[in-house]
Amino acid sequence: MVAPLKVGIAGLGTVGAEVVRLIETQARVLAGRSGRGIRVVAVTARSKAKKRSIDLRGVEWVKDPMVLATHPEVDCFVELMGGAGDPALSAVEAALNGGKSVVTANKALLAKHGLKLAKAAEKHGGALNFEAAVGAAIPVIKTLREGLAGTGINRVYGILNGTCNYILTRMEQEGLSFAECLKDAQRLGYAEANPSFDVDGHDTAQKLAILASLAFGTKVAQSAVYVEGISSIAPEDLRAADDLGYRLKLLGVAVRTAKGIEQRVHPTMVPKSSSIAQVMGVTNAVTIDGEGIPPITLVGPGAGGAATASAVVADIADVARGIRANPFGRPISHLRDTKKAPMERHEGGYYIRLLARDFPGTAARIATRLAEQKISIESIVQRHPNGGAAPADGKAVPVPVILITYATHEDAVRRALAAVQKDKVISGRPQVIRIEKN
Amino acid sequence: MVAPLKVGIAGLGTVGAEVVRLIETQARVLAGRSGRGIRVVAVTARSKAKKRSIDLRGVEWVKDPMVLATHPEVDCFVELMGGAGDPALSAVEAALNGGKSVVTANKALLAKHGLKLAKAAEKHGGALNFEAAVGAAIPVIKTLREGLAGTGINRVYGILNGTCNYILTRMEQEGLSFAECLKDAQRLGYAEANPSFDVDGHDTAQKLAILASLAFGTKVAQSAVYVEGISSIAPEDLRAADDLGYRLKLLGVAVRTAKGIEQRVHPTMVPKSSSIAQVMGVTNAVTIDGEGIPPITLVGPGAGGAATASAVVADIADVARGIRANPFGRPISHLRDTKKAPMERHEGGYYIRLLARDFPGTAARIATRLAEQKISIESIVQRHPNGGAAPADGKAVPVPVILITYATHEDAVRRALAAVQKDKVISGRPQVIRIEKN
Repeated sequence: MVAPLKVGIAGLGTVGAEVVRLIETQARVLAGRSGRGIRVVAVTARSKAKKRSIDLRGVEWVKDPMVLATHPEVDCFVELMGGAGDPALSAVEAALNGGKSVVTANKALLAKHGLKLAKAAEKHGGALNFEAAVGAAIPVIKTLREGLAGTGINRVYGILNGTCNYILTRMEQEGLSFAECLKDAQRLGYAEANPSFDVDGHDTAQKLAILASLAFGTKVAQSAVYVEGISSIAPEDLRAADDLGYRLKLLGVAVRTAKGIEQRVHPTMVPKSSSIAQVMGVTNAVTIDGEGIPPITLVGPGAGGAATASAVVADIADVARGIRANPFGRPISHLRDTKKAPMERHEGGYYIRLLARDFPGTAARIATRLAEQKISIESIVQRHPNGGAAPADGKAVPVPVILITYATHEDAVRRALAAVQKDKVISGRPQVIRIEKN
Repeated sequence: MVAPLKVGIAGLGTVGAEVVRLIETQARVLAGRSGRGIRVVAVTARSKAKKRSIDLRGVEWVKDPMVLATHPEVDCFVELMGGAGDPALSAVEAALNGGKSVVTANKALLAKHGLKLAKAAEKHGGALNFEAAVGAAIPVIKTLREGLAGTGINRVYGILNGTCNYILTRMEQEGLSFAECLKDAQRLGYAEANPSFDVDGHDTAQKLAILASLAFGTKVAQSAVYVEGISSIAPEDLRAADDLGYRLKLLGVAVRTAKGIEQRVHPTMVPKSSSIAQVMGVTNAVTIDGEGIPPITLVGPGAGGAATASAVVADIADVARGIRANPFGRPISHLRDTKKAPMERHEGGYYIRLLARDFPGTAARIATRLAEQKISIESIVQRHPNGGAAPADGKAVPVPVILITYATHEDAVRRALAAVQKDKVISGRPQVIRIEKN
């Protein structure tokens, strides 16, 4: 009989406590699946006094995460403290440098220091597992790292932030504004008091950087991700999307292009028939386009204590079974530099919503400006707010015009819209949203 | 540097040829992911003369699968011949008994002899990997075996047969009959000349038996699966499903109940809002309900040469990395006997379509018979074929009556319908379809 894997857990919040509970209640199944027992031998957390629903008798309490990370009794250090800096960073580094395996759910740490940590894991022979960092219990890391090991990847994209998808779903289904839905999300605990990390796309960007590295062998780097959030989205955009056969989602997209790997996070129109378009509320989903095979989509809870703990425990079980995969799927020496995609060179279709001053020739002028940039229009919808009747006072009122373009270059779109604005035929700023085809 | 893994491939059809091609073209990525090279050293197939698009120079051609399975140069035997009997069975057994690892896509072999083969793998220390056997490149085996290693499973269900889902999708979208859609599926190559294996649910049952074993630790056995196919489904059922907020799918369902593990394959009404209901055409999908976490759904191609080969190569890469999981997730000694679920004891909601003879009191009579069995009705729809107008000749015409029941016992439904038939208030046989809630 192989000796049990001895685990040290740093961080005993909802996730940490659930990990302790699962390791105990699922002990027999875990031993059966791993070929050896798994035992929590030591823990650390900010407050020892805090009431927890778990039994920690026989488990050593350590004050300092660094002490736990270098504890001679610990084979596998589980980091659930969070944060891209210390104490998480130093502790994980110390554990890996000591030859221990590490399991973490910390996307921020990985997006910022993943490469350095993977180097330490590679050098000292420990595992560095982080299934819970992206999509919680959705097995997307394992699928990219192992399940599609021999298949070239063309694109990975997904809904990686439940807060944004919850807000967009409410906006779509109830016609509410972004601000109203955000307030509700905060009230329900789906959004933080400072919502920027979620709604401005940074959370999605961290997760995307991790997925891109696994899919394409890029050096993980949040700084290589172009980011745009959802705060400028209006209910009109969601309505128009619906009319035109699309749904609006905040997507993280990593795609192989002729110019390199493009990593971007932005509001995106997706065809209503796509798997990703069906994903509503706080649910997350990732679609993987492998070479020569139809898309694979993984859907499930992207957050939550039990779902996150499920992934953490599976990672621990992999350590127990002796699995030592390269953290990002390839040896460090194979990983390539990546830089932020220059979005002006992005190619794709665009949704454009303008507020046209309603005088003769406006539509023709817009069409001309687009044609000058060789942009072809797939569809155009002009909506008279009052059904087309002239207002009683005879004055022109702004009329929303919505355009869907065929695939074009982003700089062409920008130039055409700059010209339209100069022409003074529209009010306000145009709304521009990229389209992602499946 | 570790020596490369030496692979022998039995069967060089579409899948086998694509496996050879992927191992060659993805060599660097595979080596990076596995930590060692992978090399095809020997192959066998029915015809050596057959023209193939792959380069087999330097690869030994072996005539007999048994010789390949026991070839001293082969570390990993890849079985792509198919069929539950010989030569696949003997060859896989011989390879495992010789301590080799085996990768196979052969669901029939596993559903019939999986336990025996897993025993051989466990005894001699080889791996037995079969990701491609269920859902091709959809990583459902890996998810159940590793990704949810520490999470109790309550239910696994899915669309596991593309032929059936293609037929049901066409029937729903175009209002066509089963026979018409089957003919089209055969013409397009989605269905065999003898379609029974697919449309009568046996293919789904084999896959479900494998999933159930991984999820619940049952001894894999196709004979433990209750099976009903889709040939009795009428376009009216699909229309009625749509009206009532459901979609009709052929599901394989394995679920933990108070009376044991229930494994069943049958046409099923699923809520239109569920992930599984969105899956159209030949696409497959599996939903896993883990304890305490929202459902995880994996969607993708369930068949096809490239998708199947992708999974086979990933399995080979796992062998190369030295992963030796228990084939069914647990040691053989932990696996439990399972028997066919007695469907009369099944509990759930039911869709019932009757053709009522249109005379006063029929609806009341049906309602009484259901009430006698303590069956509560969630909704009832009675459709007069001609909008309710009495026929010109004054004669009563049969009127379709559609009922949705709340959860009840199947034997109660059977007794109620037997009584209704005895009452002679309906024409023909009632259509009864089980409902699966998400």
